[in-house]
Amino acid sequence: MNIKESVSNIFIETTGFTPKRSLQTMLIGRPLATEDAPHQTIGKLIGLAVFSSDAMSSVAYGPQELMMILVAAGTGLLHLAFPIVLGIVGLLMILTFSYEQTIHAYPDGGGAYIVARDNLGELPAQTAGAALLTDYILTVAVSISSGVAQIVSAFPALYTYRVEIAVAMILLIMLINLRGVKESGITFAVPTYFFLVLIFATVIIGFVRLLAGTLGTVVNPPTLETNVLQPLTMFLILRSFANGTTSLTGVEAISNGITAFREPRAKNAGITLLWMAGILGSLLIGITFLSIHVGVIPVDGETVISQLARTVYGSRGPLYLLTISATTIILVMAANTAFADFPRLGALHAGDGFLPRQLTYRGSRLVFSYGIVALSVIASLLVIAFQASVTRLIPLYAIGVFLSFTLSQTGMARRWWKSGHLKPGEEIVEPGSTVRYDNGWKHKMIINGLGAFCTAVVMIVFAVTKFKDGAWVVILLTPVLVTIFFSIHRHYKNLARQLSLDNPAPKKPHIRRNRVIMPISGVHRGTLEALRFARTLSDDITAVHISVDAKETAKVEEKWEKWGEEYRLIVLNSPYRVFLEPLLDYIDKLAAVANPTDIITIVVPQFIPQHWWTSFLHTRTAESLRKALLHRENIVITEVPYQVK
Amino acid sequence: MNIKESVSNIFIETTGFTPKRSLQTMLIGRPLATEDAPHQTIGKLIGLAVFSSDAMSSVAYGPQELMMILVAAGTGLLHLAFPIVLGIVGLLMILTFSYEQTIHAYPDGGGAYIVARDNLGELPAQTAGAALLTDYILTVAVSISSGVAQIVSAFPALYTYRVEIAVAMILLIMLINLRGVKESGITFAVPTYFFLVLIFATVIIGFVRLLAGTLGTVVNPPTLETNVLQPLTMFLILRSFANGTTSLTGVEAISNGITAFREPRAKNAGITLLWMAGILGSLLIGITFLSIHVGVIPVDGETVISQLARTVYGSRGPLYLLTISATTIILVMAANTAFADFPRLGALHAGDGFLPRQLTYRGSRLVFSYGIVALSVIASLLVIAFQASVTRLIPLYAIGVFLSFTLSQTGMARRWWKSGHLKPGEEIVEPGSTVRYDNGWKHKMIINGLGAFCTAVVMIVFAVTKFKDGAWVVILLTPVLVTIFFSIHRHYKNLARQLSLDNPAPKKPHIRRNRVIMPISGVHRGTLEALRFARTLSDDITAVHISVDAKETAKVEEKWEKWGEEYRLIVLNSPYRVFLEPLLDYIDKLAAVANPTDIITIVVPQFIPQHWWTSFLHTRTAESLRKALLHRENIVITEVPYQVK
Repeated sequence: MNIKESVSNIFIETTGFTPKRSLQTMLIGRPLATEDAPHQTIGKLIGLAVFSSDAMSSVAYGPQELMMILVAAGTGLLHLAFPIVLGIVGLLMILTFSYEQTIHAYPDGGGAYIVARDNLGELPAQTAGAALLTDYILTVAVSISSGVAQIVSAFPALYTYRVEIAVAMILLIMLINLRGVKESGITFAVPTYFFLVLIFATVIIGFVRLLAGTLGTVVNPPTLETNVLQPLTMFLILRSFANGTTSLTGVEAISNGITAFREPRAKNAGITLLWMAGILGSLLIGITFLSIHVGVIPVDGETVISQLARTVYGSRGPLYLLTISATTIILVMAANTAFADFPRLGALHAGDGFLPRQLTYRGSRLVFSYGIVALSVIASLLVIAFQASVTRLIPLYAIGVFLSFTLSQTGMARRWWKSGHLKPGEEIVEPGSTVRYDNGWKHKMIINGLGAFCTAVVMIVFAVTKFKDGAWVVILLTPVLVTIFFSIHRHYKNLARQLSLDNPAPKKPHIRRNRVIMPISGVHRGTLEALRFARTLSDDITAVHISVDAKETAKVEEKWEKWGEEYRLIVLNSPYRVFLEPLLDYIDKLAAVANPTDIITIVVPQFIPQHWWTSFLHTRTAESLRKALLHRENIVITEVPYQVK
Repeated sequence: MNIKESVSNIFIETTGFTPKRSLQTMLIGRPLATEDAPHQTIGKLIGLAVFSSDAMSSVAYGPQELMMILVAAGTGLLHLAFPIVLGIVGLLMILTFSYEQTIHAYPDGGGAYIVARDNLGELPAQTAGAALLTDYILTVAVSISSGVAQIVSAFPALYTYRVEIAVAMILLIMLINLRGVKESGITFAVPTYFFLVLIFATVIIGFVRLLAGTLGTVVNPPTLETNVLQPLTMFLILRSFANGTTSLTGVEAISNGITAFREPRAKNAGITLLWMAGILGSLLIGITFLSIHVGVIPVDGETVISQLARTVYGSRGPLYLLTISATTIILVMAANTAFADFPRLGALHAGDGFLPRQLTYRGSRLVFSYGIVALSVIASLLVIAFQASVTRLIPLYAIGVFLSFTLSQTGMARRWWKSGHLKPGEEIVEPGSTVRYDNGWKHKMIINGLGAFCTAVVMIVFAVTKFKDGAWVVILLTPVLVTIFFSIHRHYKNLARQLSLDNPAPKKPHIRRNRVIMPISGVHRGTLEALRFARTLSDDITAVHISVDAKETAKVEEKWEKWGEEYRLIVLNSPYRVFLEPLLDYIDKLAAVANPTDIITIVVPQFIPQHWWTSFLHTRTAESLRKALLHRENIVITEVPYQVK
């Protein structure tokens, strides 16, 4: 203990406590000191790898789920997937330009929550947050389920174990995240670029063989189980489009993480976003085009990527297996991204008092442990409930993302409006950024407004076309979550107001009389130890014994005569053999006649046995007494422990 | 509050507490005052009904399970059941005479536990107790399963739901017992005599029709599933005999309950025992004889009683249904008996300190609630594990009863030996009874010795022939239970010794200095309330703040300067963001330099939110602090609650 600093009566010390090894440290590593928090920044190449796994991995399920809807109207209509994907890529472009503007406006991080909070108010911000939190959970469930679907495509024998594999993967990612990923960049770059190389190789080789005329069709395609064909309706096409838009989830990731970039960070982040969008768009188009061409059949048993890859490479050879592995890995990386984002957003909400404060607490490895565990548990339950089926999970997915897109873009549009109404040189300082006059505000407002409009339309399409399939869950859940957030907030605000010293209550007079009540079940060494302490508090000591057994009580009275040092003993007969109620009754009566300068101290003798298992052998009256008394006013509870070896 | 009596400084009051209505009182009734405990005694007719349901109901499964073994060697050998049953009835006679002697020797209750404790010592007594407790659980499981089997015989469609029905029945009996059966006698007499009338009617009509030559054979007998016949071996016959002896469980019931009889109670109880044995014996012989004659096929699907009754009555008509109902009811009554015996024996063990003391606690309805709930839970689990199959449960059953028979009879034999070695007029007062010289001691010793010998032989036969089928579980469990009983006993004895004031420790000096430590996470009204209290304890007050966030700490320091009344504040930096360890570390260091006349009081400011759900919104540091500190020596923990509305 070395005292570092001393200001008047305040002493600051750093304790010599060093963490010990335990099962926990074996699993998640030795505790890290606060000052060990990393402060590195990354460049564009690494940034692309760190922030784009969510977006890029969605090429593994987006086109597939899009085609899955179309195929219900017959395999002959699968070619419609291509124009639909073009529409989705168009939407991607609009989103990209919108978010590019957000990045420049919010160089300290422009997630939907922050943008909505600064420009639209608390309700939209909490809504955006609730939507995003829901969607991060679904990102984990969908990505992992899709990852397992890739593995199962390559090794069909594992199909029966898909739920178990998925849950095991989630728990593994949880452990890794509780350890805290040292974001060295390289751990992200290797798998991401491995995936990009292999998936582009697949697409390019596919096109080359197509042009050379050697690209055949899928050998032994999986059989389709639906017999009854649905008619091709506008509704079907919109549903298919809605399913495809799940590919756009993750586009917002870079705008959340701008601070991680090297300076000029807004510029670097913006360029990275453009790259990401370009790559995502070309992959979506390439994969969909080739899939249609080789006659991929979208089913639950074998993924589109698997069918495409084995057709392009002509067999289930090494290149096929590498492609499948890379796809699985990028999907796991996407889930991993949610493990970074969910706890961070949760901590942001908690810091603003809309979620339990514990979420802001960094665990022994400097990560938001509670958030990580919560995410794993909920995602695992989802995977179990939906049997790790991407198709069954997808109707719940993306609706939250698009809601947050809409709110974020609306907030941006509003921000440009504010900006346009400032005089040059004027500033509005908001928690998330500073608003200044911008020459191009009209132009920029139109871009963000268009983004908001388009994403709103998609969201409505999504909500309507997939309502019955499961979207209703999210539509119902979001307002419920928002309500919970606000009641939590009310609780914290109310508490802070009541505890606050800013408007202090009239100063209470000093305590003049301390009346000590000592509930005893017997007279033993522990009792005397408590009495010894009680004497230091007051001379007004009353022992209270609840009598349920006349023989026992006689013993207590006799012993008190001998050992009670002539203090008062009150025996309360309890005809109904209850302990708590007569005592509380008695205390209430005492409290009713107390002066404001009186205080009642309940001294509870507690013998503490050495082994935990022995606690089953004792009635824990003291414990329930404590819980009941904590809610009484002007009562202090003192436990005098007596150790038994 | 009216003070009734006042001896020196001791005051005795009876509080005006009256219990409130709640879900609990709706289910199990309003609490009863201790003085409401019933003190009535019963005569022989009612006594027979109260204590014999266990024994008599076993005619529903005893003969059946006996035949179940024989049938494995072919239906042609079922007639061997008759001589085997005669052997069992012979054993019943020996047991009856043995227990008749026990009743007279122990007019205050002569259960195996008491007899073994007084005459053989603690180990045999605990063994007998463990064996009996196990068997009471099995009585519930077997009786209820057999009861459900009767129902299922009449309504085969219910076969699929047999486990659910059985568990529901157990829970219902649990509720009834938690309410506390007002043992009006009539509630027992009606179903018991209903059963006796119907079962005797069945047997007598069976014999009449047999003599008249109109008794046919079972129509549509159930089909036997075993194809491979086993050879008829001595082992098979012994197994069959062992299964049949399960009919003798319950014979000991009257000797446990002598005190319930009207005076002269030993005589009344003894006569009742003889009646019971006579009825049981004739039913066993009658049912087995008729069953063989009408060609009953012992299977799991339809009970022997059902096949016999529908043959005797010629159809599944009203008389058949009444017989089945009566049998079901008597089986349920038997289970109900175990619900009285198990908690009572458990309370006896607990009173002697071999089981958790809570078992002696009478609930709001004056019954041993913990024992009742424990019995229901374990019996339900057994029923679920064994799929409510009597045949699968039976190998575990009765071995405990016979072990306790043997121990009890050995104890009795030893008692006669002691009695024979006293001079006339001499007495040995034992906890359970008083031993006096008895003229016929040799004769009586031989009877009890014979009882002990025979039951020991049966027990060994049981253990050997049914070891593989499940008896091993009980053989293993009994010593484990006995070991647990003794470690519990050791704990209580050790605790009592350490708390005892008989050999008081050297008197501790008065406390001279109270050092107050007040851990604070912030400075708010709750903190000031705690400080206000701390000032009444001592002037040596130190507030301790664990710093994990520099900004927070700065605020705490600033506020303490203003509100801390110039008391010391120690800030402990916690680089690993843990709260507990640095504080404990600090307290340990203080404690290390304390004098014997010093005490350290930890004053914990606790704000108490109004709603329970809000507790999820706060880290319960105070709670974990309390738990950790309770195990430190010379430390007192004081909680100062501050209510937040």
